[in-house]
Amino acid sequence: MSRYLKEAYQAMEAYVPGEQPRDMAYLKLNTNESPFPPAPAVVAALQKQDVEQLRLYSDPTGRPLKEKLAALYGVKVENIFLSNGSDDILNFAFMAFSGEKGAVFPDITYGFYPVFARLHQVPYAEAPLKEDFSLDYRDYCGVDRLVVIANPNAPTGMTIPVGQIEEILKSNPDSVVLIDEAYVDFGGQSCYPLIADYDNLLVVRTYSKSRCMAGARLGYAIGAAGLIEDLEKLKFSTNPYNINRLTMKLGEMTVDAEAYYQEKCAEIIAVRQWTAKRLEALGFTVLPSSANFLFAKSGRIGGETLYLELKKRGILVRHFSKPRIQDFNRITIGTAEQMELLVQTIQTILTGGNL
Amino acid sequence: MSRYLKEAYQAMEAYVPGEQPRDMAYLKLNTNESPFPPAPAVVAALQKQDVEQLRLYSDPTGRPLKEKLAALYGVKVENIFLSNGSDDILNFAFMAFSGEKGAVFPDITYGFYPVFARLHQVPYAEAPLKEDFSLDYRDYCGVDRLVVIANPNAPTGMTIPVGQIEEILKSNPDSVVLIDEAYVDFGGQSCYPLIADYDNLLVVRTYSKSRCMAGARLGYAIGAAGLIEDLEKLKFSTNPYNINRLTMKLGEMTVDAEAYYQEKCAEIIAVRQWTAKRLEALGFTVLPSSANFLFAKSGRIGGETLYLELKKRGILVRHFSKPRIQDFNRITIGTAEQMELLVQTIQTILTGGNL
Repeated sequence: MSRYLKEAYQAMEAYVPGEQPRDMAYLKLNTNESPFPPAPAVVAALQKQDVEQLRLYSDPTGRPLKEKLAALYGVKVENIFLSNGSDDILNFAFMAFSGEKGAVFPDITYGFYPVFARLHQVPYAEAPLKEDFSLDYRDYCGVDRLVVIANPNAPTGMTIPVGQIEEILKSNPDSVVLIDEAYVDFGGQSCYPLIADYDNLLVVRTYSKSRCMAGARLGYAIGAAGLIEDLEKLKFSTNPYNINRLTMKLGEMTVDAEAYYQEKCAEIIAVRQWTAKRLEALGFTVLPSSANFLFAKSGRIGGETLYLELKKRGILVRHFSKPRIQDFNRITIGTAEQMELLVQTIQTILTGGNL
Repeated sequence: MSRYLKEAYQAMEAYVPGEQPRDMAYLKLNTNESPFPPAPAVVAALQKQDVEQLRLYSDPTGRPLKEKLAALYGVKVENIFLSNGSDDILNFAFMAFSGEKGAVFPDITYGFYPVFARLHQVPYAEAPLKEDFSLDYRDYCGVDRLVVIANPNAPTGMTIPVGQIEEILKSNPDSVVLIDEAYVDFGGQSCYPLIADYDNLLVVRTYSKSRCMAGARLGYAIGAAGLIEDLEKLKFSTNPYNINRLTMKLGEMTVDAEAYYQEKCAEIIAVRQWTAKRLEALGFTVLPSSANFLFAKSGRIGGETLYLELKKRGILVRHFSKPRIQDFNRITIGTAEQMELLVQTIQTILTGGNL
């Protein structure tokens, strides 16, 4: 830290992304990336000319991509916001919509929410999930704060029904309700149709998970035109061109390849179900997941120990040291072969072989 | 605007990027892009596999690219910060280093500086450039604020010597001095070697101009390790993966192709000199530019009128309505052929032909 850093940021702790060690080739099941490449048409899309055209700025309005997304979801162009990944959108939302009273989100959820809150000096409350890690929607009714809920939630993978989101929306008419649908395509139900009735709903989506493009940096939000306009204002006050030209093009091609992605999501769901059963057979408690990961704990080995033993054997999963969840690991769903390897490796670890 | 937007942002005005009209094919001389594509090796670099690998997040540390830039400039990896274009870095710098007293920059400079200041509620002073648009470095000595100077300046293209920057650094030991070197490769002198002696110097650079990659979104800063650490903290508190994988790879290849870019900069400089002479021959006042643009006014036609007449004829230049510079236009240097067309078109406009 330099002695020039603004006081407000001095004690702040940044987000810690999933590790990317380079000492060996790991099977990466730790950052919820897709095991599949983008659709063939997307992979084949980039031409020499696209790279040559990088001399020009990207279109800061992103209109062609917005038009495609608007058509896909049956909303208007002015209901779509584009940015450099959904983290970027969450950051803007915490800046724009936290109001006087601040924000509220679950105690166990995406670890970036409290980071955004602290960065922007937003007071926040953490509503504890129930004992079984399910979310009681009544904790968010009438709170009159920015409500931030990941649905499905991370790292639990658990989901709440759209009807409960509607209750939250109804009871907080003067606050924005942000539903982070990063993982919705793996079994959740999207609430975006509610934007027609609720001007306080902001739905945040990403290309990083079900669209197999974490490294392209593309996220979007769906909401009432007023909310989108506010987000545009912040984007145009920080970095109007924040989506690069290649990603913008690939993003458009991705919408056209919807069928491929639906198919890959179905595959992930099937492999997830298989993996959950196998882990349960090994004595694991596995939370009911609607995401592209499982959150699981063994009664026979500590969460951190399992994480370390897997890492030794070339498999990365994500362990969180927060006391309430320290016995768990979050395991990204890979291909069937990868999960077979994971289960076998866990079996070896549990039986004390090769430790 | 929605009724949910935080009060602090309600009256704020965002930055307005150069226009990108789509009603016809324009010769774009309005956003200081390069007329040249990236180096041949860069254009040829992207493989199908790179797009497939977009399923994975980019490396949030950017270490391989940092290593290349550090080697190029003879500094250490911890002296380099990478982000999504230099605007992104400027935004972080206004957040991090404005301190209690705020910032100071010239009255005529990059129009984004006051936007960043207002966004982060940073009080700022604008030091008037001299009558001839030159900058008096003494206006920035001992001010004890975040000093922000574009060198060369935009939209004037004029430069100040490194010795004067050192005086500013010396006299503000408790404040950061940010030198925005977006245009330095077109004739300015970089001050980055001073980071060895001044821990309050932050030099901001971009791939958008001399590196022909405005659409790739890549900027970097060079500074003391403490300042870089502060910027990393803000980046990891907002969007750690903000540089996409393709841009990261192209950014590395770009460093290897240094000779190509030097050659193209020399070409731009030669065309700039030719263009300046031709405009002067038409009676224009042309400020002495060390950038990839000229800032010029005619005594025979108003700045806005010339801008509009050029636009009618398919040539975009940038006009600013600020009273002090409203007679001027900022004209990006294109290829020799493009500038020949520009000069001929201006000639036609001035002689009243084809109006």
